[in-house]
Amino acid sequence: MVRTERALERSLPPNEKSPAALHQAMRYAVLGGGKRLRPLLVYATADALGHDAPGLDALACAVELIHSYSLVHDDLPAMDNDALRRGRPTCHVMFGEAMAILAGDALQALAFELLARGDIATGTAPGLTLRMLDVLGRACGAGGMAGGQALDLAAVGQKLTLAELEHMHACKTGALIGAAVHLGALAGGADEGVREALAHYAHALGLAFQIRDDILDVDGESTVLGKTAGKDAAADKPTFPSVIGMQATVARLEELTAAALDAIAPLGEHGVLLRELALYAANRSH
Amino acid sequence: MVRTERALERSLPPNEKSPAALHQAMRYAVLGGGKRLRPLLVYATADALGHDAPGLDALACAVELIHSYSLVHDDLPAMDNDALRRGRPTCHVMFGEAMAILAGDALQALAFELLARGDIATGTAPGLTLRMLDVLGRACGAGGMAGGQALDLAAVGQKLTLAELEHMHACKTGALIGAAVHLGALAGGADEGVREALAHYAHALGLAFQIRDDILDVDGESTVLGKTAGKDAAADKPTFPSVIGMQATVARLEELTAAALDAIAPLGEHGVLLRELALYAANRSH
Repeated sequence: MVRTERALERSLPPNEKSPAALHQAMRYAVLGGGKRLRPLLVYATADALGHDAPGLDALACAVELIHSYSLVHDDLPAMDNDALRRGRPTCHVMFGEAMAILAGDALQALAFELLARGDIATGTAPGLTLRMLDVLGRACGAGGMAGGQALDLAAVGQKLTLAELEHMHACKTGALIGAAVHLGALAGGADEGVREALAHYAHALGLAFQIRDDILDVDGESTVLGKTAGKDAAADKPTFPSVIGMQATVARLEELTAAALDAIAPLGEHGVLLRELALYAANRSH
Repeated sequence: MVRTERALERSLPPNEKSPAALHQAMRYAVLGGGKRLRPLLVYATADALGHDAPGLDALACAVELIHSYSLVHDDLPAMDNDALRRGRPTCHVMFGEAMAILAGDALQALAFELLARGDIATGTAPGLTLRMLDVLGRACGAGGMAGGQALDLAAVGQKLTLAELEHMHACKTGALIGAAVHLGALAGGADEGVREALAHYAHALGLAFQIRDDILDVDGESTVLGKTAGKDAAADKPTFPSVIGMQATVARLEELTAAALDAIAPLGEHGVLLRELALYAANRSH
């Protein structure tokens, strides 16, 4: 989506400005493609509530900057040790490990700064912006994404139950996907009932997205995926197919997709974009 | 200071809660001693303005969590590769590299979350809290601490001028020290003139603190420092003594200390704690 790319481009410091190597690594990590699922969820959620405003761009950028930083750190040799991401060499392969660590750190700070800056979050009441910052902080931290990554590390070589596997993914990728929808809902002025329905939608979509990832990791090719295929099995990480078998994995994916669509049924026609994103998450080929 | 330690203790997730390894690494990184200069600057600045409130604890914790995360990441093998910090093994030596990266990431998120959470920043208007979040974000990011660390990496084996060396340190350590004072000043309701004087104080103190570090790196012993002595020279990093010689370094330290004290002279007796901290930064033995 042109709007997301333009907003991300504007939010990042220019390549030529000092410290140039850091800025280049940050821009490389963020601007090199990517599905932009989280920004799209921000816009689609607000759209379902009849809301659109320039202030949404800051929310969309903030979640994507956090997502991008998490990929840079996850790909590091000490973590998943991945050389390929979004069809290109990973950030540390291009810029070195030290610069990749710093680029991730700086992207996280920039995400919070973007949200906090009044001039971008145009027209949002300060109290609401603070609530959004709290939502983003919780989603990123030890109770969310970083915590999920820690559970993921601890799971290598372990036998997990389906519930444990889903909890790990609900933290590792689900928390930020949930935050994207939550931020869109807060911007759109959703009441508590609608926010709760949207939280169910986000939870189901997040897990469905991950299950599709696991299926593609078995079936896909690196050239189509843009990242290394078969790496979870190679790393002895529990996956949906390894925990419950491929047939049950496909059934769980269908169940979660139906749950996501059910959750937003009360929005009727307004939820069309959210519906498309849930179908995309479940059926995508990369 | 008991107040800082208690506030930090309260701000961190408990060791026994899942994901326990991540929480343990976070607590290890933050609670193992440390000078607590930045929290002390928050309290001392607010005190100089006649302000004290429970809300200060969140500001003090936020800057110390950011400082702690930066030490964890700086010590990583890909960065400064340090095994000793605050007299103990560094976080990655204790918990492994992957967990140390995640602990740093989660500490950064927690710092912003602490500031954003209304229940902690008691009595602070949302608009003012947003301004504080912006101050903290800028101090941490590519234009502040992370940018300074990138300049530091680029400086290895290079000849810097005194101005370049001071600029690097003004970003790497000065930005967060400046943020600590700025946050205390905002909490204390300082007008623009006073805030400017305090910014000069913080800038001079930050550089003086770093110069003292460089002198101790030459003169000190690891057992007293609690970290590896002589490491900057060994890593071929430019230092004040290597750039301008030891005699000029000592003279610059005295000049900056005088400048820091001058800047807060208008505060009179109210500035007593700030004065003590400037003298401590310049004269400390570790």
